[in-house]
Amino acid sequence: MSKTTKLAQHLETLKINNMYKNDFYWTWDKTDDEIDAIFTVADALRDLRERNISTKVFDSGLGISIFRDNSTRTRFSFASACNLLGLNVQDLDEKKSQIAHGETVRETANMVSFMADVIGIRDDMFIEEGHKYQKTFMDALDEGYGDGILEQRPTLVNLQCDVDHPTQAMADMLHVIHYFGGVENLKGKKIAMTWAYSPSYGKPLSVPQGIIGLFSRFGMDVVLAHPEGYEIMPEVEKIAEENAKKSGGSFKKTNSMKEAFENADIVYPKSWAPFKAMEERTQLYREGDKAGIDALEQRLLAQNAEHKDWACTEEMMKLTRDGKALYMHCLPADITGLSCKEGEVDNSVFDRYIVPLYKEASYKPYIIAAMIFLAKVKNPVDALMDLERKGDKRKAF
Amino acid sequence: MSKTTKLAQHLETLKINNMYKNDFYWTWDKTDDEIDAIFTVADALRDLRERNISTKVFDSGLGISIFRDNSTRTRFSFASACNLLGLNVQDLDEKKSQIAHGETVRETANMVSFMADVIGIRDDMFIEEGHKYQKTFMDALDEGYGDGILEQRPTLVNLQCDVDHPTQAMADMLHVIHYFGGVENLKGKKIAMTWAYSPSYGKPLSVPQGIIGLFSRFGMDVVLAHPEGYEIMPEVEKIAEENAKKSGGSFKKTNSMKEAFENADIVYPKSWAPFKAMEERTQLYREGDKAGIDALEQRLLAQNAEHKDWACTEEMMKLTRDGKALYMHCLPADITGLSCKEGEVDNSVFDRYIVPLYKEASYKPYIIAAMIFLAKVKNPVDALMDLERKGDKRKAF
Amino acid sequence: MSKTTKLAQHLETLKINNMYKNDFYWTWDKTDDEIDAIFTVADALRDLRERNISTKVFDSGLGISIFRDNSTRTRFSFASACNLLGLNVQDLDEKKSQIAHGETVRETANMVSFMADVIGIRDDMFIEEGHKYQKTFMDALDEGYGDGILEQRPTLVNLQCDVDHPTQAMADMLHVIHYFGGVENLKGKKIAMTWAYSPSYGKPLSVPQGIIGLFSRFGMDVVLAHPEGYEIMPEVEKIAEENAKKSGGSFKKTNSMKEAFENADIVYPKSWAPFKAMEERTQLYREGDKAGIDALEQRLLAQNAEHKDWACTEEMMKLTRDGKALYMHCLPADITGLSCKEGEVDNSVFDRYIVPLYKEASYKPYIIAAMIFLAKVKNPVDALMDLERKGDKRKAF
Repeated sequence: MSKTTKLAQHLETLKINNMYKNDFYWTWDKTDDEIDAIFTVADALRDLRERNISTKVFDSGLGISIFRDNSTRTRFSFASACNLLGLNVQDLDEKKSQIAHGETVRETANMVSFMADVIGIRDDMFIEEGHKYQKTFMDALDEGYGDGILEQRPTLVNLQCDVDHPTQAMADMLHVIHYFGGVENLKGKKIAMTWAYSPSYGKPLSVPQGIIGLFSRFGMDVVLAHPEGYEIMPEVEKIAEENAKKSGGSFKKTNSMKEAFENADIVYPKSWAPFKAMEERTQLYREGDKAGIDALEQRLLAQNAEHKDWACTEEMMKLTRDGKALYMHCLPADITGLSCKEGEVDNSVFDRYIVPLYKEASYKPYIIAAMIFLAKVKNPVDALMDLERKGDKRKAF
Repeated sequence: MSKTTKLAQHLETLKINNMYKNDFYWTWDKTDDEIDAIFTVADALRDLRERNISTKVFDSGLGISIFRDNSTRTRFSFASACNLLGLNVQDLDEKKSQIAHGETVRETANMVSFMADVIGIRDDMFIEEGHKYQKTFMDALDEGYGDGILEQRPTLVNLQCDVDHPTQAMADMLHVIHYFGGVENLKGKKIAMTWAYSPSYGKPLSVPQGIIGLFSRFGMDVVLAHPEGYEIMPEVEKIAEENAKKSGGSFKKTNSMKEAFENADIVYPKSWAPFKAMEERTQLYREGDKAGIDALEQRLLAQNAEHKDWACTEEMMKLTRDGKALYMHCLPADITGLSCKEGEVDNSVFDRYIVPLYKEASYKPYIIAAMIFLAKVKNPVDALMDLERKGDKRKAF
Repeated sequence: MSKTTKLAQHLETLKINNMYKNDFYWTWDKTDDEIDAIFTVADALRDLRERNISTKVFDSGLGISIFRDNSTRTRFSFASACNLLGLNVQDLDEKKSQIAHGETVRETANMVSFMADVIGIRDDMFIEEGHKYQKTFMDALDEGYGDGILEQRPTLVNLQCDVDHPTQAMADMLHVIHYFGGVENLKGKKIAMTWAYSPSYGKPLSVPQGIIGLFSRFGMDVVLAHPEGYEIMPEVEKIAEENAKKSGGSFKKTNSMKEAFENADIVYPKSWAPFKAMEERTQLYREGDKAGIDALEQRLLAQNAEHKDWACTEEMMKLTRDGKALYMHCLPADITGLSCKEGEVDNSVFDRYIVPLYKEASYKPYIIAAMIFLAKVKNPVDALMDLERKGDKRKAF
């Protein structure tokens, strides 16, 4: 029996009726079965693709991308996922549009969606803004569909907001599942999601939040570590706590990087900005207070500089389980001596983990494709079986 | 009998031999049958798409877009239309090209067209320039094709020039046709195409020109209203007059917004710049006279500000037929109290008409697709019937 | 027998086993059979396309383009080639990516390649940098593929580096082959690859280098002419010498444009920057020496201005074989009295050769498609025959 057939059979056992025609905002909106379904479909699509079997479920159609922040990985992952399913990407470049002319989100949303099957949005710059923008956008499409303006309601894939970065966290998790040989092996594994020093300023909180919000569902011991003052959103910590309780794992916080690394099976050291400071920044931007923003930036950089010892060094790695924890990062990392003078991780550590790091990233296109697939395909089990049975070649010769 | 079959049968009754391999510059270049054919094919393509039937007539091929002005709606409409028919869009971004290096239009035209099936151009910024650019471009392709450089002659879709905005006017008209329950119900209906105050400067004349040039063909009473000094191109007024005569309708001009709104069935209040001022501006740009341009802008903004009473207020709406005229706009509108302090339309009026306004916009992708279809498909009746009979699914599962 | 069948039969006689899964950096990496194969496949793909037969070998897949310099022709040629074969282009716009955040080439290469079939790179700005970038990029993909990160190894098409511009040189050569009625008629033909004056600064050397590196393989008399101080890379001159020896032609250098034009069958007058100056420029950029760069630019422009007599005038053309040499250029040219006051070529000369010039350019999409085809298709002979036999229509109606 092929891998895809096995995966389709597993998919059949899951309760996923709510996924069809639904959006993907945050992993914690989804049931365990739904999360499982995404991993399952991602693996199946990858298996088909690797066997040169076409996974096009669309003959034509558009995937709309809106990147309100720079992106390489996620942009290419979204483009790859759309292409894999037969959709063409049309990017909304706000600079080339008339959005500056006072167009409302409601209007933009409808105007770009007449033939859209999926909308991918990255909006991670401002606390309290990113998710709100996505929600406003999709509410407008609900209305547009309800009012008969749109013939169909496109689905959302959150490509990173201020709260969660679900395509990242799920790609990371699928990597971990395969790395440890199956989801059943994760119980009791310790993951250290820790802050790390970077010479930059204002990195989004959605990665640490996404990680603790998702990894806490698998019975793991999730530790969130950061210096005082680098708190993340309390709502997400609460979610991690509840998840941990339900899954039989744990969620702990600490202000010691060492404590977090101690016997960790996985470490995820990464810079982010303090939640409170990000709230302040959002407010300053709203007020157009340029001087205030500059002052805040200086203050935050100075605050960062007090914590240069929060780095994933060789010494720190020795503290982990057998000195061999899996090192993870969403990339690009600030690598000491390579991309900056002092950063998140020693070059020698980073370099030793390049292969797993790149593999980690390789899951993202399939995760996004699976999200689209499950939101747009009515009978995903049949669809996977049909695609395999037909066996149309992706590359003909 | 399906809607598409009925539409195909109607299409068969129309004389449209000249459309194959032809361009679309202005609606008034086209016969009544040709205009009818575009509406018919647009409706048929929409019917097929809504029934999940593939309308791909191309297995591969390129649609080239050239936007010399910002665009959201038209850009996405063109991308949607191309995708609907199986073409990929390749955008010519003049900033990333070598056009700055003194390349001629003739050369650019040929260089981007080796595998192009359709060229979509927006060039609406300068009076006397937009159409000229499109014409020069397409003449170069005629020559290139004649000389054996191009294996085929791509077709033009005018995505807005200084004279007409045919994809807008035709989408608007198809909306009106459906709104009033058929083209036969338009005779005697009054449409007020009126200037309205906006805090901006230099909006193109092609929308009002496109509207009076097209709507005057349907036996309607077309009224063009604007303050003194906001004249449009006299050639287009002449066309509207002749059209009105032929169609049994009327074309009138007035300097009173109230007179225009009085008993109107449709109102289209929208800002534009005075034709004479736009001619002056073109000249100043040609001379590179930056100070002159700034002075002109100040003069025009001051002139605009004298006419803030030209606004589509609730009070003005009460003047229309039963107070319930259909409000139209090409979007984005300058909405008083929403996108600007004082603008073209009261927020409450705009908001009440959002559903019809967005539906109006939803026709544009199908209008563009129909223009391409009729220019590229030799036997459009057979093609529509074939697409329906084959019934390939757009979304397979 | 169809043209494609004949071409496929010819292809069968060629030794091209090394092309599958290989990259295209420089023409001189390739054997004569391999060069012949590219011309053959390019002609076959063109024949199929012109007979409305689909040449899609991919059902889905991505072509990644990276333009580190402006481009119209090559950008559209790459997009056309990908479209012709069924691939979608995803452009890596470094300004919208996170590359500025210190990402390494190795990382970027892997991140954009998870679903890539082909990578097209233009990097021609800095001597010693362009090829190095491409090589580093592709080495990273070798590693990524070897490490199981990538399921397949995308192939490289060099869209211009500091050393060669193979898609240009090969399109030029295919034009010459057809112009003179076959490769067998090229023996003894004289081509003058000469420097010409342009008011611009710093044009790449890859075109003259590409031309002498390729044209010297066909038994032609290749003459490279430039003023003293405009030397090109000595390595490439050596290649041209060796090629000439093997092919029974000749390779000569001269500092006299007249000598080069004397009885030439083909002239290719084009500006470029001195190799030494480009080396100096690369160094200044490395050091971030803005003042030094400006000073160098002034010096080079002054040096250029001493050679305004190096122009392809009507008088110069009279020196060529019967006054009727084939005039070639990669475009856009600096045309005296049209795009600049004094430039590379008289307007009357350029204008007389516009049709052959544009035809010359028309081969580039097919050359690129052939490069991709031969690198990705295992049995190219069978594939061509199959495509023809199936005869799927590119445009259905």
